[in-house]
Amino acid sequence: MAQTPSIPKGTRDFSPEIMVKRNYIFDTIKSVFKLYGYMPLETPAMENLSTLMGKYGEEGDKLLFKILNSGDFIGDVPESELLERNSLRLTNRIAEKGLRYDLTVPFARFVVQHQNELTFPFKRYQIQPVWRADRPQKGRYREFYQCDVDVVGSDSLLHEAELVQMVDEVYRRLNIRVRLLMNNRKILAGIAETIGYPDRLTDITVAIDKMDKIGLENVNAELREKGISAEAVEKLQPILNLEGGNAEKLEKLRHVLQASETGLKGIEELEKVFGYLDGVGVETEVRLDLTLARGLSYYTGAIFEVKALDVPIGSITGGGRYDDLTGIFGLKNMSGVGISFGADRIFDVMQQLDLFPKQDNTATTRLLFVNFGEQEERYCLPLLKKLRAAGINTEIYPEAAKMKKQMGYADKKGIPFVAIVGENEMQRATVSLKDMASGEQTELRPEELIEKLR
Amino acid sequence: MAQTPSIPKGTRDFSPEIMVKRNYIFDTIKSVFKLYGYMPLETPAMENLSTLMGKYGEEGDKLLFKILNSGDFIGDVPESELLERNSLRLTNRIAEKGLRYDLTVPFARFVVQHQNELTFPFKRYQIQPVWRADRPQKGRYREFYQCDVDVVGSDSLLHEAELVQMVDEVYRRLNIRVRLLMNNRKILAGIAETIGYPDRLTDITVAIDKMDKIGLENVNAELREKGISAEAVEKLQPILNLEGGNAEKLEKLRHVLQASETGLKGIEELEKVFGYLDGVGVETEVRLDLTLARGLSYYTGAIFEVKALDVPIGSITGGGRYDDLTGIFGLKNMSGVGISFGADRIFDVMQQLDLFPKQDNTATTRLLFVNFGEQEERYCLPLLKKLRAAGINTEIYPEAAKMKKQMGYADKKGIPFVAIVGENEMQRATVSLKDMASGEQTELRPEELIEKLR
Repeated sequence: MAQTPSIPKGTRDFSPEIMVKRNYIFDTIKSVFKLYGYMPLETPAMENLSTLMGKYGEEGDKLLFKILNSGDFIGDVPESELLERNSLRLTNRIAEKGLRYDLTVPFARFVVQHQNELTFPFKRYQIQPVWRADRPQKGRYREFYQCDVDVVGSDSLLHEAELVQMVDEVYRRLNIRVRLLMNNRKILAGIAETIGYPDRLTDITVAIDKMDKIGLENVNAELREKGISAEAVEKLQPILNLEGGNAEKLEKLRHVLQASETGLKGIEELEKVFGYLDGVGVETEVRLDLTLARGLSYYTGAIFEVKALDVPIGSITGGGRYDDLTGIFGLKNMSGVGISFGADRIFDVMQQLDLFPKQDNTATTRLLFVNFGEQEERYCLPLLKKLRAAGINTEIYPEAAKMKKQMGYADKKGIPFVAIVGENEMQRATVSLKDMASGEQTELRPEELIEKLR
Repeated sequence: MAQTPSIPKGTRDFSPEIMVKRNYIFDTIKSVFKLYGYMPLETPAMENLSTLMGKYGEEGDKLLFKILNSGDFIGDVPESELLERNSLRLTNRIAEKGLRYDLTVPFARFVVQHQNELTFPFKRYQIQPVWRADRPQKGRYREFYQCDVDVVGSDSLLHEAELVQMVDEVYRRLNIRVRLLMNNRKILAGIAETIGYPDRLTDITVAIDKMDKIGLENVNAELREKGISAEAVEKLQPILNLEGGNAEKLEKLRHVLQASETGLKGIEELEKVFGYLDGVGVETEVRLDLTLARGLSYYTGAIFEVKALDVPIGSITGGGRYDDLTGIFGLKNMSGVGISFGADRIFDVMQQLDLFPKQDNTATTRLLFVNFGEQEERYCLPLLKKLRAAGINTEIYPEAAKMKKQMGYADKKGIPFVAIVGENEMQRATVSLKDMASGEQTELRPEELIEKLR
């Protein structure tokens, strides 16, 4: 085995330096989730293919990683099928399980499977990797973490407001300036109705969703290409150009959509959510954006998207309300709403803006004891024990190597303090503490050392 | 889709109640790892099969979950091979990746792959699921978490002592009474030498490893069956029957193994580790057990095993020193030592002994606001915000449902306090706080409420 080993393309090792930063993000997000009463859930990496297939469209089915059945998987396959060499059909024969593609379908599966044991509204968060056999490219991986928070079993709009508050709190804690865009699928449906194409909702939303990227002119062109009449496109213009604050926009919209019951319902929902948010106060700008459509077809009410203000990286959080997610598994009338935080993008934003805390005292070693030999080891070990008992992450270099090597270890590992204990210190029952940043060295009694580092 | 959905056999959903307990275990273990300077590492779930195959024996190869290549995986397979229906050979054709079987091989792969970027000694912990296509049975799963901590790139015995201290600290914090058994592979080699069978080390250790289960008589019988002479088995008896404290045992052993250089080296290593531990003091009983052998062939020095004293469940932690783990990937002379905590068994022990904390304030909701309607919602929402700002996990029931339903929600979710805010409370700017355990109800000002729940 002469070759250097490697990992499958599109996958990553997360080294300790990266893990500390990723954990900082996940821990921050989790602590906010818990503040709002959301509880952790984990589902298996492998699901039955019958659970996963057909949930992500034809393209999605192809992107599922399938797991080969154990044992003699090929024995029962008829000869004709073997020689047909149809990979897709053969897959059904030799693979029963697949790796989860997202956290949404496993969550729906879990809720349906355990509906009689759960307390509704069921509030859960789930932070686990998902796998997609996508072509790997910059920023797109075959294994990546999703970080979802959802509540199902309630259609209360308090949850929409709650999710916005959570977004506000997460990004305040992470120190990322963001804007939250909101819209409502019912308003989009109302617009489609109003311009005379109630059954073309998808085409219309797909087109106006591109406003940001391709601009108004091209959106109009695409709509006409898709067979929306010039008159209808014309009718759409005041809506797409709507200006002003949220209240003002909603007021104008109410006028435009007056004939659409669905549209008015959407307006009412948004007004209620904005009302809650005004009452409680959030720092983040929450902006009604009528061009926000979000692709996923299962959204039925509010939709959310969060953009970082200081890095052009697209959406870093998104989600919405869905009235029938569990319907795919036979459980009707289970409305839910949720959002997903994009951990990789949040990581990139924080890296680019240098927002990670310089020293995370709970995550990394605070103090390294230099090792001068057996006698000093025996003197130092009880001291290390005391420091650890005080919650201070502490190491001793494992052998009496050259000073330079030991200091190099502290330096490379980013350890901010080094304790030097030689004969003098042992005699005086002290420790010489070196601050690696300033180079300053002070002689301290053990209690003083603990006090200083705590 | 009328059937209730399910998950693959041998896998599990972890519901919020279970997750909170599992996280309690993992968080406790992690915080101890960090105290000793170990840092987190994560590797991908999928590894190249070339990395995994041949590392776990022939049986292990079969137990690997293999991932079907994407796209047209069957197109290139020669017809003759298809018709041969040899599942094992066909696997090599149609699957390049597999799910990791343990954390040890991926760790070795990582160290070799990144050897030029790492700082040695490299101290890492890794808590991730692994997958094995084993026949599922009680307590044996096809997906389960491993929780490994290792240091590589140093042969210092300080690390052996450090790992024992960590075991001591973890189980002290989890409140599980344990005994730690230690032995040394070099002593076992010395014993094999001394009784005249230096090349039968594996057979001898496999037999005496069963002492606990089958007793001395059966161990002797097995040794004779394997062709060890009656004389040699006789010679082994004083060693297997060695009594007394660790120092006493080592002293007697030094006499028995005086002709074996390797054996004496093993004794010296253990003495040094016990010396460190005596100096620093650990609560856990650390017992030299010469019948402890542990199966894994890569161990070369110290071996550890931890047993719970109050539940007969086998080993809950184990590990040892290995001098050549990275050798399988071409990197020589990289000694390491590590242990693995068995999360599922630790969970079972804590469950059986009822050791989980009754109320984990950081993990679950502390307070539920009853919802009486819109006006009350608006009054309560800013209060909820204040409580959360004080770090108190707080929810409001999402709609003005019947009181009984709302109290039922608090009860089922194990929420210890309920806040009741009606007209009277709003007028007096107070909150009525109900203690769900005692039923006691008190009217408090917001500051008092925060003070009480913090």
